[in-house]
Amino acid sequence: MRALRYYGPHDLRLEHDVPEPKCLPHQVKVRPSFCGICGSDLHAYLLPTVIPFKDTPHPVTGETWPVTFGHEFSGDVVEVGSEVQGELRVGDRVAVQPTICCNRCPPCKEGYTNCCNSLGFVGLTGWGGGMSDFVSVDAKFAFKLPDNVPSDIGAMVEPLAVAWHAVDQTGIKPGGSALVMGAGPVGLAIIQCLKARQAKEIIVVEIVPERKKFATRFGATAVIDPQEQDVVAKCKELCDGQGPETAFDCAGAAASIKSACLAIRYRGLVVNVAFWEKEVPFQFNNLMFGEKRFCTSISYSAADFRNVVEALGNGLLDVREMITRKTTMDRVVEDGFYALMHEKDKHMKILIEM
Amino acid sequence: MRALRYYGPHDLRLEHDVPEPKCLPHQVKVRPSFCGICGSDLHAYLLPTVIPFKDTPHPVTGETWPVTFGHEFSGDVVEVGSEVQGELRVGDRVAVQPTICCNRCPPCKEGYTNCCNSLGFVGLTGWGGGMSDFVSVDAKFAFKLPDNVPSDIGAMVEPLAVAWHAVDQTGIKPGGSALVMGAGPVGLAIIQCLKARQAKEIIVVEIVPERKKFATRFGATAVIDPQEQDVVAKCKELCDGQGPETAFDCAGAAASIKSACLAIRYRGLVVNVAFWEKEVPFQFNNLMFGEKRFCTSISYSAADFRNVVEALGNGLLDVREMITRKTTMDRVVEDGFYALMHEKDKHMKILIEM
Repeated sequence: MRALRYYGPHDLRLEHDVPEPKCLPHQVKVRPSFCGICGSDLHAYLLPTVIPFKDTPHPVTGETWPVTFGHEFSGDVVEVGSEVQGELRVGDRVAVQPTICCNRCPPCKEGYTNCCNSLGFVGLTGWGGGMSDFVSVDAKFAFKLPDNVPSDIGAMVEPLAVAWHAVDQTGIKPGGSALVMGAGPVGLAIIQCLKARQAKEIIVVEIVPERKKFATRFGATAVIDPQEQDVVAKCKELCDGQGPETAFDCAGAAASIKSACLAIRYRGLVVNVAFWEKEVPFQFNNLMFGEKRFCTSISYSAADFRNVVEALGNGLLDVREMITRKTTMDRVVEDGFYALMHEKDKHMKILIEM
Repeated sequence: MRALRYYGPHDLRLEHDVPEPKCLPHQVKVRPSFCGICGSDLHAYLLPTVIPFKDTPHPVTGETWPVTFGHEFSGDVVEVGSEVQGELRVGDRVAVQPTICCNRCPPCKEGYTNCCNSLGFVGLTGWGGGMSDFVSVDAKFAFKLPDNVPSDIGAMVEPLAVAWHAVDQTGIKPGGSALVMGAGPVGLAIIQCLKARQAKEIIVVEIVPERKKFATRFGATAVIDPQEQDVVAKCKELCDGQGPETAFDCAGAAASIKSACLAIRYRGLVVNVAFWEKEVPFQFNNLMFGEKRFCTSISYSAADFRNVVEALGNGLLDVREMITRKTTMDRVVEDGFYALMHEKDKHMKILIEM
């Protein structure tokens, strides 16, 4: 079968003779229909980050590169394992939760598989990936799509689950207020999730003109350009002089985290969603005055996937416009990675149509 | 009356002709008996930090330097204002909560006076201080000491309230585990408060030999010297391979906060208690993996004061040994500040006997 395989930085190969995976008794075998290109894929393409090196195989999969790429995908069920219970049938359209966890460490045993000591992902750390003709996954990680959710939108469930999980960390209620630092794909997904929770103020900080427009279309109630306005002062002004209750840092930069900490109200919460490439200078007093809090959000749970699929079905989430391009397996580097690197103002989510 | 007044960095003057404060209708007038020297006093002595500058008076007191020093004090009630209700009588021994707040901002209105937008302290930002013969304070901020709590211990209520408040941020339960970075006065007070909450593991990280001994005497179940042992590995080993649930950073250094973040278990909480003199390099991923949380603790509430006074009365807290010296008003700089700066291994809390 075809599979797009990662052989190291800048070395992604479309192979045509990769063996098809078996469908184990607890698995379903899926034929991917759409697969998104994620920032993590781009990171890995440029630098070996989460992909297991040759001499350090992933503790659960035991694999090292080459690995098949693609962890944001939907597909059709083509086989159901002999021990699978529940409603999944051949022909069902599903979104796949790509979580790989050990099921043995305390976080796993306590239900926090996203905090697994050996956390991995289908499409990054082995067990195949969405950028291939077939992939077999644990049946509990395949979520049937409602009839009114097409398969291209199904490939958006994974990034939406990242956002849903982050918003869940805050306990934000209808009428609440939030600041979103950065309107890339994750930022836009967070805006959508905040809108779905009926947040009253959704303030977005962004520089890139096209992304500002996206933010407004997706539900931002105010967009601040930090080159033109004082983010902290504007946030206070927009939220009763106190600032928003919560902030999401999707930018991962010293300036964004500083603004987020200073802009929120007393006892407010900053949620980190960004992956940090390096240390940054930080003044902890910026959290101390007002007893502000900071938490982190990583990955998602099966409940997040269920909630996102349901919210897409009932129209609470609508991310159609986020898909700015569809390309094919033989054009991933040119149409995908290069576009995400060099045309930030034009592209949000690029899908591979399998 | 006598008062020790701050005229700027390195300029503390013992004056003998300072006017006695009036006792307003809602106040009690107190004759301080013991007053502790705090790290904040030392900071202010060296650099103008929280003391209001000449051209920026404190928004509540309207004062600038010179201000009277001393915010950790006990004393005797010598006058009770005409409108004071409740049990306070002339002759009562009290510990004073030195909080100054505006009572008008949202934090104040919502009961978080410690997060007041204009937070100040008697003894730092005006309205007199404990290093004087008399000081008048709002009666609701004077807490009667039980008969079995002597007045020198009464001067320890304020630093203990800082620690009590910090421990309260964690919701730690009997049998819980905690890491304390730094065994200075605040660190030792936190150890005591953790012991009072029946924490099972109280791990302390400290370098200074004498402070290590203090930590053990005060209730530490393990003391780690970071020059000799790997803090993170040792913490994991001591707490079921997972690390403690919570950590208190009382050191305020890049190395301490990094260790605290890495040492705690997944979804654990780091509480910042330190005041940070500058930005430090920080890698936020150290919190991200395992969805760890960070919060800050500043000052205290009246409830914290009540709880500490009660815990001293019933023996849950015992800080007698923390008092390493008593000195007099004319020797504060030599016996107090210099000792705290240059004899860190000998001194923990130095009190002025008035």
